Amino acid sequence: MANDPAFFERIALIGIGLINSSLARAVKRDGLADHIAVCSRTHASLDTARELGIADSTTTDARQAVDGADLIVVGTPLGVYADIARAMAPGLKAGAIVTDVGSVKQAVIRDLGPHLPEGVHLVPGHPVAGTEHSGPEAGFAELFDGRFCILTPPPGTDDDATARVRALWEQVGMSIEIMDARHHDQVLAITSHLPHLIAYTIVGTATDLEDHLMKEVVRYSAGGFRDFTRIAASDPVMWRDVFLNNREAVLEMLGRFSEDLTALQRAIRWGEGDKLFDLFTRTREIRRGVIDAKQA
Amino acid sequence: MANDPAFFERIALIGIGLINSSLARAVKRDGLADHIAVCSRTHASLDTARELGIADSTTTDARQAVDGADLIVVGTPLGVYADIARAMAPGLKAGAIVTDVGSVKQAVIRDLGPHLPEGVHLVPGHPVAGTEHSGPEAGFAELFDGRFCILTPPPGTDDDATARVRALWEQVGMSIEIMDARHHDQVLAITSHLPHLIAYTIVGTATDLEDHLMKEVVRYSAGGFRDFTRIAASDPVMWRDVFLNNREAVLEMLGRFSEDLTALQRAIRWGEGDKLFDLFTRTREIRRGVIDAKQA
Repeated sequence: MANDPAFFERIALIGIGLINSSLARAVKRDGLADHIAVCSRTHASLDTARELGIADSTTTDARQAVDGADLIVVGTPLGVYADIARAMAPGLKAGAIVTDVGSVKQAVIRDLGPHLPEGVHLVPGHPVAGTEHSGPEAGFAELFDGRFCILTPPPGTDDDATARVRALWEQVGMSIEIMDARHHDQVLAITSHLPHLIAYTIVGTATDLEDHLMKEVVRYSAGGFRDFTRIAASDPVMWRDVFLNNREAVLEMLGRFSEDLTALQRAIRWGEGDKLFDLFTRTREIRRGVIDAKQA
Repeated sequence: MANDPAFFERIALIGIGLINSSLARAVKRDGLADHIAVCSRTHASLDTARELGIADSTTTDARQAVDGADLIVVGTPLGVYADIARAMAPGLKAGAIVTDVGSVKQAVIRDLGPHLPEGVHLVPGHPVAGTEHSGPEAGFAELFDGRFCILTPPPGTDDDATARVRALWEQVGMSIEIMDARHHDQVLAITSHLPHLIAYTIVGTATDLEDHLMKEVVRYSAGGFRDFTRIAASDPVMWRDVFLNNREAVLEMLGRFSEDLTALQRAIRWGEGDKLFDLFTRTREIRRGVIDAKQA
């Protein structure tokens, strides 16, 4: 066990939402740690984690949670990363590896990096998996099966530390990609952040409708709208922090989207059926790609 | 059987895509017709319908298909409705009921109505159900289970004709709502047409990305994008015709959406986290409504 690069004596999970609670289940299932220490802001989440059998110890104190840990996984909304880094820094042991599961990566290097003591390794990570549900009850060990995990170690990161984080995610079912943090933030802006922003917007537009229309939106949601309501049910704090922390890339992609939407609006207004047909045919190809890549 | 209002001696299906082929399967399953005549533009679709055992007779001639039929269900793209009406009109028998399954209803009254002979009843319908797949192979009898079907009989429509169309859709598992065609088109503009337009747009925006980003969009689509690719894989001709035939309502809803998106863009640019959080919290409520209405 001790020679398995995916094995850690003590893992500290900071935050116990969908991702970290899923990871805890997978670690327990596969025997990848002797001890899982769980840190959360609320006692309710810690109680739940204990009841679920995914926490060997619980605390609201990040410094206490990381004490003696060889791996720390930060899984909170991005907005509190800097506070967490400051709180846990004095408790980190030399050689410890700090990673995270956030959906933005440049901000993680900016917010965690400066606070970590010499000899502690930072390997930012992003398991690209999830559901619209949140909280420790929402997790399940199979969440990561067949999905991709992106690691964005800054230049100069210890290769061994990166290798161990890679081994952990591979062990729980993921394929690993190493990527520059800026590139990650651009790719995710279009594949994840913009889709969420748009889903939130259209569901918001529907909630503002006149009463006589609003009542029927839910009833007839099977025509497409319901898929957007699912995405727009995602955790509000997590997503607020994603947009505030990936502002540049999201605004860039949003600009492109708005231009394209305006062009389509014009085609509808002027009855340019050919333009609509051409686009609607082109988009089918991407779906085939998604299915072929087994990400459908 | 003959006294069951959901039973028809001869049903003519004009077009044999996802909806009509699903209806044919359900009609066969429940013994709701002595004969199903299928009309399609292509011999390939007709061959498939025969192989699937959902057609008792096949033809490319709409007039021949409707000969002797007591129910005609038009299930083609909206753009050919007027041509079909002209083609089948001379073959329609007195007392026949013409209905359809199109996603826009004012245009159906406009395009079918004027061509139908005296004594033939027009009861426009819209079973709000579907998948992203198209063609006769894509159908399945359970498609309609627990979904809503909207009927929009114009003022003065024969009550008995409406009752029989209602009975058919109820028999195959749907709940029926009677609605004014204009109101239908507004409700569907926000619950179905705008979601499709937006999904097509964002998938289109992604296909135009620089190569180094484009390659990775598919791989990381699990973060939200893949749901849009599914919607954007829907039939291009059907959807072109929806937008061209529900122009006014779609442009109205699109205008509201664009305003809301611009407001959100501004909130991201200026770091107004409270505005983002408020919206993202509000949208969760609608999801609960969709789940409570069993439309999730």
